[in-house]
Amino acid sequence: MKKSVPTKIINDIERQQTVAIVGMGLIGGSLALALKAHGLAIKVLGVEADEIHAKKAMECQLVDQIVDIEGAMLQASVVIMAIPVNAAEKLLPELLNACKDHIILDVGSTKAAICKVAVAHSKGSHFVATHPMWGTEFSGPEAAQHGAFTGKAVVICSEDFSNKKALSWAENMYTTMGMHLLYMSANSHDLHAAYVSHISHITSFALANTVLEKEKEDEAIFEMASGGFESTVRLAKSNPAMWLPIFMENKENVLDVLNEHISQLKKFKSCLEKENVGYLKELMENANKITRILK
Amino acid sequence: MKKSVPTKIINDIERQQTVAIVGMGLIGGSLALALKAHGLAIKVLGVEADEIHAKKAMECQLVDQIVDIEGAMLQASVVIMAIPVNAAEKLLPELLNACKDHIILDVGSTKAAICKVAVAHSKGSHFVATHPMWGTEFSGPEAAQHGAFTGKAVVICSEDFSNKKALSWAENMYTTMGMHLLYMSANSHDLHAAYVSHISHITSFALANTVLEKEKEDEAIFEMASGGFESTVRLAKSNPAMWLPIFMENKENVLDVLNEHISQLKKFKSCLEKENVGYLKELMENANKITRILK
Repeated sequence: MKKSVPTKIINDIERQQTVAIVGMGLIGGSLALALKAHGLAIKVLGVEADEIHAKKAMECQLVDQIVDIEGAMLQASVVIMAIPVNAAEKLLPELLNACKDHIILDVGSTKAAICKVAVAHSKGSHFVATHPMWGTEFSGPEAAQHGAFTGKAVVICSEDFSNKKALSWAENMYTTMGMHLLYMSANSHDLHAAYVSHISHITSFALANTVLEKEKEDEAIFEMASGGFESTVRLAKSNPAMWLPIFMENKENVLDVLNEHISQLKKFKSCLEKENVGYLKELMENANKITRILK
Repeated sequence: MKKSVPTKIINDIERQQTVAIVGMGLIGGSLALALKAHGLAIKVLGVEADEIHAKKAMECQLVDQIVDIEGAMLQASVVIMAIPVNAAEKLLPELLNACKDHIILDVGSTKAAICKVAVAHSKGSHFVATHPMWGTEFSGPEAAQHGAFTGKAVVICSEDFSNKKALSWAENMYTTMGMHLLYMSANSHDLHAAYVSHISHITSFALANTVLEKEKEDEAIFEMASGGFESTVRLAKSNPAMWLPIFMENKENVLDVLNEHISQLKKFKSCLEKENVGYLKELMENANKITRILK
Protein backbone atom coordinates (compact mmCIF):
# COMPACT_ATOMS: atom_id res chain seq x y z
CA MET A 1 0.00 0.00 0.00
CA LYS A 2 1.30 3.42 -1.02
CA LYS A 3 1.95 5.73 1.87
CA SER A 4 -0.34 8.77 1.52
CA VAL A 5 1.05 12.29 1.71
CA PRO A 6 -0.66 14.23 4.49
CA THR A 7 -3.30 16.66 3.18
CA LYS A 8 -1.61 19.55 4.97
CA ILE A 9 1.57 19.10 2.91
CA ILE A 10 -0.36 18.83 -0.37
CA ASN A 11 -2.27 21.99 0.52
CA ASP A 12 0.94 23.77 1.38
CA ILE A 13 2.64 22.89 -1.92
CA GLU A 14 -0.43 24.15 -3.77
CA ARG A 15 -0.54 27.28 -1.65
CA GLN A 16 3.04 28.18 -2.63
CA GLN A 17 1.95 28.25 -6.27
CA THR A 18 -1.28 30.12 -5.72
CA VAL A 19 -1.68 33.89 -6.02
CA ALA A 20 -4.81 35.76 -4.97
CA ILE A 21 -5.77 39.09 -6.47
CA VAL A 22 -8.10 41.38 -4.60
CA GLY A 23 -10.06 43.42 -7.15
CA MET A 24 -11.11 42.02 -10.52
CA GLY A 25 -10.80 45.27 -12.46
CA LEU A 26 -8.62 46.47 -15.34
CA ILE A 27 -5.34 45.99 -13.44
CA GLY A 28 -6.28 43.00 -11.28
CA GLY A 29 -7.73 41.18 -14.27
CA SER A 30 -4.73 41.92 -16.50
CA LEU A 31 -2.35 40.81 -13.72
CA ALA A 32 -4.27 37.55 -13.34
CA LEU A 33 -3.86 36.87 -17.06
CA ALA A 34 -0.14 37.73 -16.94
CA LEU A 35 0.51 35.51 -13.89
CA LYS A 36 -0.93 32.52 -15.73
CA ALA A 37 0.64 33.38 -19.08
CA HIS A 38 4.12 33.60 -17.58
CA GLY A 39 3.76 30.52 -15.36
CA LEU A 40 4.10 32.66 -12.24
CA ALA A 41 1.16 30.89 -10.58
CA ILE A 42 -0.47 27.50 -11.07
CA LYS A 43 -3.66 28.79 -9.54
CA VAL A 44 -5.00 32.35 -9.46
CA LEU A 45 -7.77 33.29 -7.07
CA GLY A 46 -9.91 36.40 -7.33
CA VAL A 47 -11.47 38.37 -4.49
CA GLU A 48 -14.26 40.61 -5.72
CA ALA A 49 -17.01 42.23 -3.66
CA ASP A 50 -19.13 43.17 -6.69
CA GLU A 51 -21.10 40.07 -7.65
CA ILE A 52 -21.46 41.02 -11.31
CA HIS A 53 -17.71 41.67 -11.62
CA ALA A 54 -16.97 38.40 -9.83
CA LYS A 55 -19.17 36.48 -12.27
CA LYS A 56 -17.63 38.32 -15.21
CA ALA A 57 -14.10 37.51 -14.00
CA MET A 58 -14.95 33.80 -14.03
CA GLU A 59 -16.69 34.05 -17.41
CA CYS A 60 -13.64 35.82 -18.88
CA GLN A 61 -11.46 33.10 -17.34
CA LEU A 62 -9.36 35.65 -15.52
CA VAL A 63 -9.13 33.49 -12.39
CA ASP A 64 -9.69 29.88 -11.38
CA GLN A 65 -11.93 30.64 -8.46
CA ILE A 66 -13.58 33.51 -6.60
CA VAL A 67 -12.90 33.44 -2.86
CA ASP A 68 -13.26 35.83 0.07
CA ILE A 69 -10.34 37.47 1.88
CA GLU A 70 -10.10 34.63 4.42
CA GLY A 71 -10.06 32.07 1.61
CA ALA A 72 -7.36 34.06 -0.17
CA MET A 73 -5.10 34.12 2.90
CA LEU A 74 -5.73 30.42 3.48
CA GLN A 75 -5.21 29.18 -0.05
CA ALA A 76 -2.61 31.60 -1.48
CA SER A 77 0.93 32.51 -0.49
CA VAL A 78 0.82 35.84 -2.35
CA VAL A 79 -2.01 38.36 -2.18
CA ILE A 80 -2.03 41.33 -4.56
CA MET A 81 -4.34 44.26 -3.88
CA ALA A 82 -5.66 45.81 -7.11
CA ILE A 83 -8.34 48.02 -5.61
CA PRO A 84 -8.70 51.80 -5.18
CA VAL A 85 -5.80 53.22 -3.12
CA ASN A 86 -7.95 54.16 -0.12
CA ALA A 87 -9.46 50.66 -0.03
CA ALA A 88 -5.99 49.09 -0.19
CA GLU A 89 -4.81 51.18 2.74
CA LYS A 90 -7.77 49.99 4.77
CA LEU A 91 -7.32 46.36 3.78
CA LEU A 92 -3.56 46.16 4.29
CA PRO A 93 -3.56 46.00 8.15
CA GLU A 94 -6.22 43.28 7.98
CA LEU A 95 -4.06 41.22 5.61
CA LEU A 96 -0.92 41.83 7.67
CA ASN A 97 -2.72 40.80 10.87
CA ALA A 98 -3.60 37.45 9.28
CA CYS A 99 -0.18 37.18 7.64
CA LYS A 100 2.00 34.10 8.28
CA ASP A 101 4.58 33.59 5.54
CA HIS A 102 2.50 35.54 3.02
CA ILE A 103 3.72 38.13 0.56
CA ILE A 104 1.40 41.10 0.12
CA LEU A 105 1.62 43.51 -2.82
CA ASP A 106 -0.33 46.53 -3.94
CA VAL A 107 -0.37 48.06 -7.42
CA GLY A 108 -1.90 51.46 -6.63
CA SER A 109 -1.17 54.87 -8.17
CA THR A 110 -0.14 56.55 -4.91
CA LYS A 111 2.48 55.13 -2.60
CA ALA A 112 3.16 57.44 0.37
CA ALA A 113 0.02 56.62 2.35
CA ILE A 114 0.16 52.84 1.95
CA CYS A 115 3.87 52.73 2.78
CA LYS A 116 3.09 54.57 6.01
CA VAL A 117 0.53 51.90 6.88
CA ALA A 118 3.10 49.16 6.20
CA VAL A 119 5.87 50.82 8.18
CA ALA A 120 3.54 51.26 11.16
CA HIS A 121 2.60 47.56 11.20
CA SER A 122 4.68 44.92 13.01
CA LYS A 123 4.42 42.61 10.00
CA GLY A 124 4.93 45.39 7.42
CA SER A 125 8.01 43.63 6.02
CA HIS A 126 5.70 41.17 4.25
CA PHE A 127 4.45 44.00 2.06
CA VAL A 128 5.89 45.36 -1.20
CA ALA A 129 4.53 48.64 -2.57
CA THR A 130 4.51 48.60 -6.37
CA HIS A 131 3.02 50.55 -9.24
CA PRO A 132 3.09 49.01 -12.70
CA MET A 133 2.93 51.92 -15.17
CA TRP A 134 0.18 50.66 -17.41
CA GLY A 135 -3.51 51.38 -17.64
CA THR A 136 -6.29 52.35 -19.97
CA GLU A 137 -9.35 54.54 -19.58
CA PHE A 138 -11.54 51.44 -19.25
CA SER A 139 -12.44 49.60 -16.08
CA GLY A 140 -13.91 46.33 -14.84
CA PRO A 141 -12.99 42.70 -15.59
CA GLU A 142 -13.86 43.01 -19.31
CA ALA A 143 -11.19 45.69 -19.62
CA ALA A 144 -8.44 43.20 -18.69
CA GLN A 145 -5.85 42.69 -21.41
CA HIS A 146 -3.38 39.97 -22.27
CA GLY A 147 0.25 41.11 -22.34
CA ALA A 148 -0.67 44.44 -20.77
CA PHE A 149 2.53 45.00 -18.80
CA THR A 150 5.18 43.80 -21.23
CA GLY A 151 7.78 46.45 -21.99
CA LYS A 152 6.42 48.88 -19.41
CA ALA A 153 8.03 50.27 -16.24
CA VAL A 154 7.09 49.31 -12.70
CA VAL A 155 7.94 51.40 -9.66
CA ILE A 156 8.93 49.63 -6.44
CA CYS A 157 8.92 51.75 -3.28
CA SER A 158 9.54 49.20 -0.55
CA GLU A 159 13.25 48.61 -0.56
CA ASP A 160 13.63 49.87 2.96
CA PHE A 161 10.90 47.91 4.71
CA SER A 162 10.05 44.85 2.61
CA ASN A 163 11.75 41.59 3.54
CA LYS A 164 14.10 40.02 1.02
CA LYS A 165 11.80 37.14 0.13
CA ALA A 166 8.84 39.41 -0.57
CA LEU A 167 10.90 41.91 -2.56
CA SER A 168 12.53 39.16 -4.65
CA TRP A 169 9.17 37.63 -5.43
CA ALA A 170 7.79 40.98 -6.62
CA GLU A 171 10.92 41.74 -8.65
CA ASN A 172 10.83 38.32 -10.27
CA MET A 173 7.13 38.62 -11.07
CA TYR A 174 7.53 41.95 -12.84
CA THR A 175 10.73 41.11 -14.72
CA THR A 176 9.21 37.80 -15.84
CA MET A 177 6.29 39.82 -17.21
CA GLY A 178 8.82 41.84 -19.22
CA MET A 179 8.70 45.00 -17.11
CA HIS A 180 11.68 47.11 -16.11
CA LEU A 181 12.08 47.99 -12.46
CA LEU A 182 12.38 51.55 -11.14
CA TYR A 183 13.22 52.04 -7.49
CA MET A 184 12.27 55.23 -5.70
CA SER A 185 10.94 56.51 -2.42
CA ALA A 186 7.17 56.66 -2.01
CA ASN A 187 7.34 60.46 -1.91
CA SER A 188 9.35 60.61 -5.14
CA HIS A 189 6.88 58.26 -6.77
CA ASP A 190 3.90 60.38 -5.79
CA LEU A 191 5.56 63.56 -7.04
CA HIS A 192 6.52 61.98 -10.37
CA ALA A 193 3.14 60.33 -10.79
CA ALA A 194 1.47 63.72 -10.34
CA TYR A 195 3.49 65.08 -13.28
CA VAL A 196 3.29 62.21 -15.75
CA SER A 197 -0.01 60.61 -14.92
CA HIS A 198 -2.36 62.36 -12.51
CA ILE A 199 -2.26 65.76 -14.25
CA SER A 200 -3.03 64.10 -17.61
CA HIS A 201 -6.20 62.75 -16.09
CA ILE A 202 -7.19 66.12 -14.61
CA THR A 203 -6.66 67.91 -17.93
CA SER A 204 -8.68 65.27 -19.77
CA PHE A 205 -11.55 65.43 -17.28
CA ALA A 206 -11.53 69.24 -17.46
CA LEU A 207 -11.32 69.30 -21.27
CA ALA A 208 -14.26 66.92 -21.54
CA ASN A 209 -16.26 69.20 -19.22
CA THR A 210 -15.24 72.26 -21.26
CA VAL A 211 -16.65 70.83 -24.47
CA LEU A 212 -19.64 69.12 -22.87
CA GLU A 213 -20.55 72.49 -21.35
CA LYS A 214 -20.50 74.06 -24.84
CA GLU A 215 -22.63 71.22 -26.19
CA LYS A 216 -25.51 72.40 -24.02
CA GLU A 217 -25.94 75.41 -26.33
CA ASP A 218 -24.47 73.94 -29.51
CA GLU A 219 -25.41 70.32 -30.11
CA ALA A 220 -23.25 69.94 -33.20
CA ILE A 221 -20.02 70.73 -31.37
CA PHE A 222 -18.70 67.15 -31.57
CA GLU A 223 -19.44 66.62 -35.27
CA MET A 224 -15.92 67.60 -36.26
CA ALA A 225 -14.08 65.83 -33.43
CA SER A 226 -11.25 63.66 -34.68
CA GLY A 227 -8.05 61.97 -33.54
CA GLY A 228 -6.43 64.92 -31.78
CA PHE A 229 -9.48 65.56 -29.64
CA GLU A 230 -9.90 61.89 -28.86
CA SER A 231 -6.27 61.61 -27.82
CA THR A 232 -6.41 64.47 -25.33
CA VAL A 233 -9.84 63.57 -23.94
CA ARG A 234 -9.88 59.76 -23.79
CA LEU A 235 -8.68 59.67 -20.16
CA ALA A 236 -11.88 61.51 -19.22
CA LYS A 237 -13.58 58.13 -19.49
CA SER A 238 -11.57 56.93 -16.48
CA ASN A 239 -13.33 55.51 -13.44
CA PRO A 240 -13.97 58.10 -10.67
CA ALA A 241 -13.99 55.31 -8.05
CA MET A 242 -10.33 54.73 -8.85
CA TRP A 243 -9.22 58.31 -9.52
CA LEU A 244 -10.99 60.22 -6.78
CA PRO A 245 -8.91 58.65 -3.97
CA ILE A 246 -5.72 59.08 -6.02
CA PHE A 247 -6.32 62.82 -6.46
CA MET A 248 -7.29 63.28 -2.83
CA GLU A 249 -4.29 61.37 -1.49
CA ASN A 250 -1.83 63.05 -3.78
CA LYS A 251 -3.49 66.43 -3.57
CA GLU A 252 -0.39 68.42 -2.55
CA ASN A 253 1.60 67.22 -5.57
CA VAL A 254 -1.38 67.37 -7.91
CA LEU A 255 -2.11 70.94 -6.81
CA ASP A 256 1.50 71.93 -7.49
CA VAL A 257 1.37 70.55 -11.03
CA LEU A 258 -2.11 71.90 -11.61
CA ASN A 259 -1.02 75.41 -10.59
CA GLU A 260 1.99 75.18 -12.89
CA HIS A 261 -0.19 73.89 -15.71
CA ILE A 262 -2.73 76.68 -15.29
CA SER A 263 0.10 79.22 -15.35
CA GLN A 264 1.45 77.63 -18.55
CA LEU A 265 -2.02 77.87 -20.10
CA LYS A 266 -2.20 81.52 -19.03
CA LYS A 267 1.00 82.18 -20.97
CA PHE A 268 -0.76 80.97 -24.13
CA LYS A 269 -3.77 83.06 -23.19
CA SER A 270 -1.68 86.18 -22.70
CA CYS A 271 0.14 85.64 -26.01
CA LEU A 272 -3.17 85.44 -27.84
CA GLU A 273 -4.63 88.46 -26.07
CA LYS A 274 -1.55 90.59 -26.72
CA GLU A 275 -0.91 89.07 -30.15
CA ASN A 276 2.59 88.27 -28.94
CA VAL A 277 3.44 86.05 -31.90
CA GLY A 278 7.13 85.76 -31.02
CA TYR A 279 6.57 84.44 -27.52
CA LEU A 280 3.75 82.16 -28.66
CA LYS A 281 6.12 80.61 -31.19
CA GLU A 282 8.74 80.21 -28.47
CA LEU A 283 6.24 78.43 -26.19
CA MET A 284 5.33 76.00 -28.96
CA GLU A 285 8.93 75.38 -29.95
CA ASN A 286 9.77 74.68 -26.33
CA ALA A 287 6.89 72.20 -26.12
CA ASN A 288 8.25 70.47 -29.23
CA LYS A 289 11.20 69.36 -27.05
CA ILE A 290 8.85 66.67 -25.77
CA THR A 291 9.87 64.80 -28.95
CA ARG A 292 13.02 63.90 -27.02
CA ILE A 293 10.82 61.94 -24.59
CA LEU A 294 8.00 60.72 -26.82
CA LYS A 295 9.59 59.32 -29.94
CA MET B 1 -1.34 59.32 -93.22
CA LYS B 2 -3.03 59.57 -89.76
CA LYS B 3 -4.31 63.02 -88.90
CA SER B 4 -2.44 64.28 -85.83
CA VAL B 5 -4.38 65.69 -82.84
CA PRO B 6 -3.26 69.23 -82.09
CA THR B 7 -0.90 69.46 -79.08
CA LYS B 8 -3.19 72.00 -77.44
CA ILE B 9 -6.06 69.49 -77.28
CA ILE B 10 -3.80 66.73 -75.90
CA ASN B 11 -2.53 69.15 -73.27
CA ASP B 12 -6.04 70.14 -72.36
CA ILE B 13 -7.23 66.56 -71.89
CA GLU B 14 -4.23 65.88 -69.69
CA ARG B 15 -4.82 69.08 -67.75
CA GLN B 16 -8.37 68.03 -66.88
CA GLN B 17 -6.96 64.95 -65.15
CA THR B 18 -4.13 66.71 -63.39
CA VAL B 19 -4.28 68.06 -59.85
CA ALA B 20 -1.59 70.23 -58.31
CA ILE B 21 -1.02 70.39 -54.55
CA VAL B 22 0.72 73.39 -53.06
CA GLY B 23 2.61 72.22 -49.95
CA MET B 24 4.18 68.79 -49.67
CA GLY B 25 3.57 68.32 -45.96
CA LEU B 26 1.54 65.89 -43.88
CA ILE B 27 -1.80 66.87 -45.42
CA GLY B 28 -0.63 67.75 -48.94
CA GLY B 29 1.38 64.55 -49.18
CA SER B 30 -1.45 62.38 -47.87
CA LEU B 31 -3.90 64.05 -50.27
CA ALA B 32 -1.54 63.37 -53.18
CA LEU B 33 -1.46 59.68 -52.27
CA ALA B 34 -5.26 59.55 -51.91
CA LEU B 35 -5.87 61.29 -55.25
CA LYS B 36 -3.81 58.64 -57.02
CA ALA B 37 -5.15 55.72 -54.99
CA HIS B 38 -8.76 56.62 -55.77
CA GLY B 39 -8.16 57.43 -59.44
CA LEU B 40 -9.14 61.06 -58.88
CA ALA B 41 -6.14 62.27 -60.88
CA ILE B 42 -3.97 60.71 -63.56
CA LYS B 43 -1.19 63.10 -62.73
CA VAL B 44 -0.43 64.83 -59.42
CA LEU B 45 1.92 67.81 -59.33
CA GLY B 46 3.56 69.18 -56.21
CA VAL B 47 4.50 72.78 -55.49
CA GLU B 48 7.02 73.03 -52.67
CA ALA B 49 9.27 75.97 -51.80
CA ASP B 50 11.49 73.95 -49.46
CA GLU B 51 14.02 72.13 -51.64
CA ILE B 52 14.58 69.28 -49.21
CA HIS B 53 10.85 68.70 -48.87
CA ALA B 54 10.45 68.86 -52.64
CA LYS B 55 13.15 66.22 -53.11
CA LYS B 56 11.65 64.08 -50.36
CA ALA B 57 8.18 64.29 -51.95
CA MET B 58 9.59 62.89 -55.19
CA GLU B 59 11.59 60.22 -53.36
CA CYS B 60 8.48 59.15 -51.45
CA GLN B 61 6.60 59.09 -54.77
CA LEU B 62 3.95 61.43 -53.44
CA VAL B 63 3.76 63.32 -56.75
CA ASP B 64 4.76 62.85 -60.38
CA GLN B 65 6.54 66.15 -60.69
CA ILE B 66 7.54 69.24 -58.75
CA VAL B 67 6.51 72.46 -60.46
CA ASP B 68 6.18 76.12 -59.53
CA ILE B 69 2.87 77.97 -59.11
CA GLU B 70 2.83 79.04 -62.76
CA GLY B 71 3.47 75.48 -63.87
CA ALA B 72 0.70 74.26 -61.60
CA MET B 73 -1.85 76.70 -63.07
CA LEU B 74 -0.71 75.80 -66.58
CA GLN B 75 -0.69 72.03 -66.27
CA ALA B 76 -3.46 71.34 -63.75
CA SER B 77 -7.18 72.04 -63.68
CA VAL B 78 -7.41 71.75 -59.90
CA VAL B 79 -5.04 73.37 -57.41
CA ILE B 80 -5.23 72.44 -53.71
CA MET B 81 -3.49 74.61 -51.14
CA ALA B 82 -2.10 72.55 -48.25
CA ILE B 83 0.04 75.22 -46.63
CA PRO B 84 -0.24 77.21 -43.38
CA VAL B 85 -3.50 79.17 -43.26
CA ASN B 86 -1.86 82.59 -43.47
CA ALA B 87 0.17 81.49 -46.51
CA ALA B 88 -2.98 80.15 -48.20
CA GLU B 89 -4.77 83.47 -47.67
CA LYS B 90 -1.86 85.25 -49.30
CA LEU B 91 -1.65 82.84 -52.21
CA LEU B 92 -5.36 82.62 -52.98
CA PRO B 93 -5.73 86.02 -54.77
CA GLU B 94 -2.68 85.18 -56.88
CA LEU B 95 -4.24 81.87 -57.94
CA LEU B 96 -7.64 83.47 -58.57
CA ASN B 97 -6.03 86.22 -60.68
CA ALA B 98 -4.48 83.55 -62.92
CA CYS B 99 -7.64 81.44 -62.83
CA LYS B 100 -9.36 80.39 -66.07
CA ASP B 101 -11.53 77.32 -65.62
CA HIS B 102 -9.56 76.20 -62.59
CA ILE B 103 -10.90 74.84 -59.35
CA ILE B 104 -9.05 76.03 -56.26
CA LEU B 105 -9.33 74.33 -52.86
CA ASP B 106 -7.77 74.85 -49.49
CA VAL B 107 -7.61 72.37 -46.62
CA GLY B 108 -6.72 74.70 -43.74
CA SER B 109 -7.80 74.57 -40.11
CA THR B 110 -9.41 78.03 -40.06
CA LYS B 111 -12.00 79.12 -42.58
CA ALA B 112 -13.33 82.62 -41.83
CA ALA B 113 -10.30 84.57 -43.09
CA ILE B 114 -9.82 82.65 -46.34
CA CYS B 115 -13.53 82.77 -47.16
CA LYS B 116 -13.38 86.55 -46.79
CA VAL B 117 -10.54 86.65 -49.32
CA ALA B 118 -12.56 84.52 -51.74
CA VAL B 119 -15.75 86.55 -51.37
CA ALA B 120 -13.83 89.77 -52.02
CA HIS B 121 -12.33 88.44 -55.27
CA SER B 122 -14.16 88.64 -58.61
CA LYS B 123 -13.24 85.03 -59.37
CA GLY B 124 -13.90 83.79 -55.84
CA SER B 125 -16.51 81.34 -57.12
CA HIS B 126 -13.70 79.10 -58.36
CA PHE B 127 -12.68 78.49 -54.76
CA VAL B 128 -13.98 75.87 -52.31
CA ALA B 129 -13.01 76.20 -48.63
CA THR B 130 -12.60 72.76 -47.06
CA HIS B 131 -11.15 71.21 -43.94
CA PRO B 132 -10.62 67.46 -43.87
CA MET B 133 -10.66 66.45 -40.19
CA TRP B 134 -7.55 64.34 -40.10
CA GLY B 135 -4.01 65.02 -38.99
CA THR B 136 -1.19 63.74 -36.85
CA GLU B 137 1.44 65.46 -34.73
CA PHE B 138 4.02 64.85 -37.44
CA SER B 139 4.89 67.09 -40.37
CA GLY B 140 6.70 67.10 -43.68
CA PRO B 141 6.45 64.80 -46.72
CA GLU B 142 7.63 61.71 -44.78
CA ALA B 143 4.62 62.12 -42.49
CA ALA B 144 2.21 61.52 -45.41
CA GLN B 145 0.02 58.44 -44.96
CA HIS B 146 -1.91 56.16 -47.29
CA GLY B 147 -5.64 55.99 -46.59
CA ALA B 148 -5.41 58.93 -44.18
CA PHE B 149 -8.84 60.42 -44.83
CA THR B 150 -11.02 57.33 -45.15
CA GLY B 151 -13.90 57.30 -42.68
CA LYS B 152 -13.20 60.84 -41.47
CA ALA B 153 -15.31 64.00 -41.72
CA VAL B 154 -14.59 66.95 -44.00
CA VAL B 155 -16.07 70.39 -43.49
CA ILE B 156 -17.09 72.41 -46.53
CA CYS B 157 -17.73 76.13 -45.97
CA SER B 158 -18.21 77.43 -49.47
CA GLU B 159 -21.78 76.60 -50.34
CA ASP B 160 -22.70 80.22 -50.73
CA PHE B 161 -19.91 81.44 -52.99
CA SER B 162 -18.37 78.42 -54.79
CA ASN B 163 -19.64 77.67 -58.27
CA LYS B 164 -21.45 74.41 -58.84
CA LYS B 165 -18.64 72.80 -60.84
CA ALA B 166 -16.01 73.56 -58.20
CA LEU B 167 -18.22 72.47 -55.32
CA SER B 168 -19.19 69.22 -57.08
CA TRP B 169 -15.56 68.42 -57.79
CA ALA B 170 -14.62 68.92 -54.14
CA GLU B 171 -17.59 66.91 -52.89
CA ASN B 172 -16.82 64.09 -55.28
CA MET B 173 -13.16 64.07 -54.32
CA TYR B 174 -13.88 63.76 -50.61
CA THR B 175 -16.70 61.23 -50.88
CA THR B 176 -14.58 59.10 -53.23
CA MET B 177 -11.89 59.14 -50.54
CA GLY B 178 -14.48 57.77 -48.13
CA MET B 179 -15.07 60.97 -46.16
CA HIS B 180 -18.43 62.26 -44.98
CA LEU B 181 -19.33 65.85 -45.78
CA LEU B 182 -20.31 68.42 -43.15
CA TYR B 183 -21.58 71.78 -44.35
CA MET B 184 -21.32 74.83 -42.14
CA SER B 185 -20.55 78.51 -42.25
CA ALA B 186 -16.91 79.55 -41.93
CA ASN B 187 -17.68 81.14 -38.56
CA SER B 188 -19.34 77.99 -37.26
CA HIS B 189 -16.39 75.96 -38.45
CA ASP B 190 -13.89 78.16 -36.65
CA LEU B 191 -15.88 78.08 -33.42
CA HIS B 192 -16.25 74.29 -33.52
CA ALA B 193 -12.62 73.77 -34.51
CA ALA B 194 -11.56 75.81 -31.48
CA TYR B 195 -13.45 73.40 -29.21
CA VAL B 196 -12.58 70.04 -30.71
CA SER B 197 -9.15 70.65 -32.20
CA HIS B 198 -7.37 73.91 -31.41
CA ILE B 199 -7.82 73.70 -27.62
CA SER B 200 -6.47 70.12 -27.61
CA HIS B 201 -3.29 71.45 -29.17
CA ILE B 202 -2.99 74.30 -26.66
CA THR B 203 -3.46 71.96 -23.69
CA SER B 204 -0.88 69.55 -25.09
CA PHE B 205 1.66 72.30 -25.71
CA ALA B 206 1.06 73.68 -22.21
CA LEU B 207 1.23 70.26 -20.55
CA ALA B 208 4.53 69.51 -22.27
CA ASN B 209 5.90 72.81 -21.01
CA THR B 210 4.62 72.08 -17.50
CA VAL B 211 6.53 68.81 -17.29
CA LEU B 212 9.60 70.04 -19.21
CA GLU B 213 9.81 72.90 -16.71
CA LYS B 214 9.85 70.40 -13.83
CA GLU B 215 12.52 68.34 -15.60
CA LYS B 216 14.95 71.23 -15.14
CA GLU B 217 15.14 70.43 -11.42
CA ASP B 218 14.24 66.75 -11.55
CA GLU B 219 15.80 64.89 -14.46
CA ALA B 220 14.04 61.60 -13.71
CA ILE B 221 10.57 63.08 -14.10
CA PHE B 222 9.84 61.23 -17.37
CA GLU B 223 11.03 57.79 -16.21
CA MET B 224 7.52 56.75 -15.27
CA ALA B 225 5.71 58.31 -18.23
CA SER B 226 3.41 55.85 -19.96
CA GLY B 227 0.41 55.69 -22.27
CA GLY B 228 -1.83 58.23 -20.53
CA PHE B 229 0.84 60.90 -20.57
CA GLU B 230 1.76 60.17 -24.16
CA SER B 231 -1.86 60.43 -25.22
CA THR B 232 -2.42 63.85 -23.68
CA VAL B 233 0.94 65.29 -24.74
CA ARG B 234 1.55 63.89 -28.22
CA LEU B 235 0.03 66.91 -29.96
CA ALA B 236 2.80 69.02 -28.38
CA LYS B 237 5.03 67.67 -31.14
CA SER B 238 2.93 69.57 -33.71
CA ASN B 239 4.57 72.00 -36.08
CA PRO B 240 4.52 75.65 -34.86
CA ALA B 241 4.71 76.87 -38.48
CA MET B 242 1.29 75.35 -39.04
CA TRP B 243 -0.29 76.02 -35.65
CA LEU B 244 0.88 79.55 -34.90
CA PRO B 245 -1.21 81.12 -37.72
CA ILE B 246 -4.20 78.93 -36.76
CA PHE B 247 -4.14 80.14 -33.16
CA MET B 248 -3.62 83.77 -34.20
CA GLU B 249 -6.41 83.71 -36.78
CA ASN B 250 -8.87 81.96 -34.54
CA LYS B 251 -7.79 83.77 -31.41
CA GLU B 252 -11.24 85.03 -30.37
CA ASN B 253 -12.71 81.53 -30.36
CA VAL B 254 -9.57 79.94 -28.96
CA LEU B 255 -9.53 82.48 -26.12
CA ASP B 256 -13.16 81.71 -25.30
CA VAL B 257 -12.46 77.99 -25.03
CA LEU B 258 -9.19 78.56 -23.22
CA ASN B 259 -10.92 80.72 -20.61
CA GLU B 260 -13.62 78.10 -20.14
CA HIS B 261 -10.98 75.37 -19.90
CA ILE B 262 -8.97 77.29 -17.30
CA SER B 263 -12.12 77.82 -15.28
CA GLN B 264 -12.90 74.08 -15.48
CA LEU B 265 -9.35 73.33 -14.27
CA LYS B 266 -9.87 75.79 -11.43
CA LYS B 267 -12.92 73.82 -10.32
CA PHE B 268 -10.69 70.77 -9.89
CA LYS B 269 -8.16 72.92 -8.09
CA SER B 270 -10.74 74.31 -5.72
CA CYS B 271 -12.11 70.82 -4.97
CA LEU B 272 -8.64 69.61 -4.05
CA GLU B 273 -7.87 72.66 -1.93
CA LYS B 274 -11.15 72.45 -0.06
CA GLU B 275 -11.21 68.64 -0.04
CA ASN B 276 -14.63 68.86 -1.62
CA VAL B 277 -14.83 65.17 -2.47
CA GLY B 278 -18.50 65.27 -3.46
CA TYR B 279 -18.10 67.97 -6.08
CA LEU B 280 -14.84 66.45 -7.36
CA LYS B 281 -16.67 63.17 -7.93
CA GLU B 282 -19.47 65.06 -9.69
CA LEU B 283 -16.95 66.77 -12.02
CA MET B 284 -15.41 63.44 -12.94
CA GLU B 285 -18.74 61.73 -13.44
CA ASN B 286 -19.84 64.57 -15.68
CA ALA B 287 -16.62 64.21 -17.72
CA ASN B 288 -17.38 60.48 -18.10
CA LYS B 289 -20.31 61.54 -20.31
CA ILE B 290 -17.71 61.95 -23.05
CA THR B 291 -18.11 58.18 -23.48
CA ARG B 292 -21.26 59.05 -25.41
CA ILE B 293 -19.03 60.78 -27.99
CA LEU B 294 -15.85 58.71 -27.86
CA LYS B 295 -16.88 55.09 -27.95
